[in-house]
Amino acid sequence: MTVDINLDKNSYKIYINELENLEFDGSVGVVTNQTVGALWLADLLGRIKAKSVTLIAIPDGEAYKNLDTLNLILEQLFNAKLDRKSTLIALGGGVVSDITGFAASIYQRGIDFINIPTTLLSMVDASVGGKTGINNKFGKNLIGSFYQPKAVYCHTKYLKTLPNREFSAGVAEAIKMAVMFDGKFFEFFKKSDLKAKDDVIYLIEKCVKIKADIVNQDEKESGIRAVLNYGHTFAHVIENQTNYSKFLHGEAVAIGINMANNLAQKLGLLSKDESKQVREVLEKFSLPVSYKIKDTKNFYEHFKLDKKSLNSKIKFILPNGIGNFKIKDDVKEELVIQTLKEFI
Amino acid sequence: MTVDINLDKNSYKIYINELENLEFDGSVGVVTNQTVGALWLADLLGRIKAKSVTLIAIPDGEAYKNLDTLNLILEQLFNAKLDRKSTLIALGGGVVSDITGFAASIYQRGIDFINIPTTLLSMVDASVGGKTGINNKFGKNLIGSFYQPKAVYCHTKYLKTLPNREFSAGVAEAIKMAVMFDGKFFEFFKKSDLKAKDDVIYLIEKCVKIKADIVNQDEKESGIRAVLNYGHTFAHVIENQTNYSKFLHGEAVAIGINMANNLAQKLGLLSKDESKQVREVLEKFSLPVSYKIKDTKNFYEHFKLDKKSLNSKIKFILPNGIGNFKIKDDVKEELVIQTLKEFI
Repeated sequence: MTVDINLDKNSYKIYINELENLEFDGSVGVVTNQTVGALWLADLLGRIKAKSVTLIAIPDGEAYKNLDTLNLILEQLFNAKLDRKSTLIALGGGVVSDITGFAASIYQRGIDFINIPTTLLSMVDASVGGKTGINNKFGKNLIGSFYQPKAVYCHTKYLKTLPNREFSAGVAEAIKMAVMFDGKFFEFFKKSDLKAKDDVIYLIEKCVKIKADIVNQDEKESGIRAVLNYGHTFAHVIENQTNYSKFLHGEAVAIGINMANNLAQKLGLLSKDESKQVREVLEKFSLPVSYKIKDTKNFYEHFKLDKKSLNSKIKFILPNGIGNFKIKDDVKEELVIQTLKEFI
Repeated sequence: MTVDINLDKNSYKIYINELENLEFDGSVGVVTNQTVGALWLADLLGRIKAKSVTLIAIPDGEAYKNLDTLNLILEQLFNAKLDRKSTLIALGGGVVSDITGFAASIYQRGIDFINIPTTLLSMVDASVGGKTGINNKFGKNLIGSFYQPKAVYCHTKYLKTLPNREFSAGVAEAIKMAVMFDGKFFEFFKKSDLKAKDDVIYLIEKCVKIKADIVNQDEKESGIRAVLNYGHTFAHVIENQTNYSKFLHGEAVAIGINMANNLAQKLGLLSKDESKQVREVLEKFSLPVSYKIKDTKNFYEHFKLDKKSLNSKIKFILPNGIGNFKIKDDVKEELVIQTLKEFI
């Protein structure tokens, strides 16, 4: 099946479990990481027809989503003499697609980009929205661009080689969407253990459609799209404090969801039982829900560097019951500190 | 007066010799170089009202339009905690505006950008079109983005402190536009010595309007906009071979124009007399028209890396009489080599 992302000149299709042969008039660069490359590169190369194909393998891990790796990708593209009619393909998880999309957006002021996500997280989250970027010492995704792919190919075959922990990290982002937008979809997570392929396809389709709806309304994140950052305000600080190495992104988001729910409870937006339901679903998929905060004041200050905080006002994305959201930018510091203290 | 650049959501105005006070709700970063900063920063700061203003001075010169300087700018913006509602202002020539526009386009995935060009070249050329970028060891402007400013302020007061050589470099780009698009405008260069302020305002207005017309038709350089690269195919190689240090960009363009005209003559597109008229106007403004090529084959090979050469076909932008252009991508290598040999 396919899902259309309608963005005028930047429209594209997301193909779910549809195998396509990829044909190009020009040259192609394929960026993957060493782990995914060993498993899936041969399969992909067998389906590409192009003038020339250049392979670029980057080290595996969020720690490499930085300026040095970006520069390494760009230099290899220049060495291979890719021109403005060339296409860059990302084969991998969020790190590969974020950095490859960014490279495509700035190589000779922008060349075509195709995204082939191989993790559940990047299928449900990173494959829609056109966010590209890299991390630096100040935080996550602080340098980047909005750049839409020409096409996205999601396929569950890639999930067969995905470690369980990474699969669960993807489930966290799916749960995030259910809690924010769709109470019925949340019920699905109570029933399914996601062992059946059809359940996984349903999950991907559902998430892609929810996110496509949001992005169609708000391509550059000036309004409702910010809701997708539920859990992320907390998660970004946690990832930064643990050097992007202790938790997978989705795991940090699971903790962030639980922290946001704790705050939502204090504001009367979520009942104790609803908060517990969400926590139990997260735990069912072996996701972490707590993190020891060393210095609550320092943790709070870190929020202010977040891209979503306008002029130092901290914006919290909170559930308003399960299936609805509320954006609050006037939460009292004491209340947030109180929430953070429950995680010491 | 103002010139409108109509690009739907990305529309903006170019103000020519209109002084405006600049007011912002959010924070502002001002990027300038050390030379321009010493002359004009105080004047600009007196006109800015903002929540906070952060100054960033980069070294003066094309050699610094690189990844290191870009990173230095970004880090200072993060240190100053500029958020997504902040604005970045470029005060300087093409180097400052190219790198500042690029920084604005990737800082937190894009913040507002205002351009205040202080050289004639950046007023007539870089102020319209949204091209941003940096150089690397493979060539000029090979990394960058298309990113439109929110406003451009051109003012002839800045030209009072501009060295003559740099003024002439700007005139070269203006002559380029006249030869490509407007035979009557070319006559202006035969008559005026550009000492009168009104003549300079006329020149800026004329160039901005010509370029605005082109960019309105072709925002991302898929077609007619390539014509603005008349002289540049040759100029980029010259600049690269001389490490961006011997010639100013406009000077290299002047040489490139003369080389392109030589080739156009061989193709019967330009008469010997027309070629001479253009050369004489260039020389009238003390612009160089020749460059000793050491290795013609090597010079030719370098064309192929140019962004404008699709799939290794080299595209030449040539005058078709004065005031008209012709794009040729089937020029025989021997003919080009013959032209290059006349510059040995």
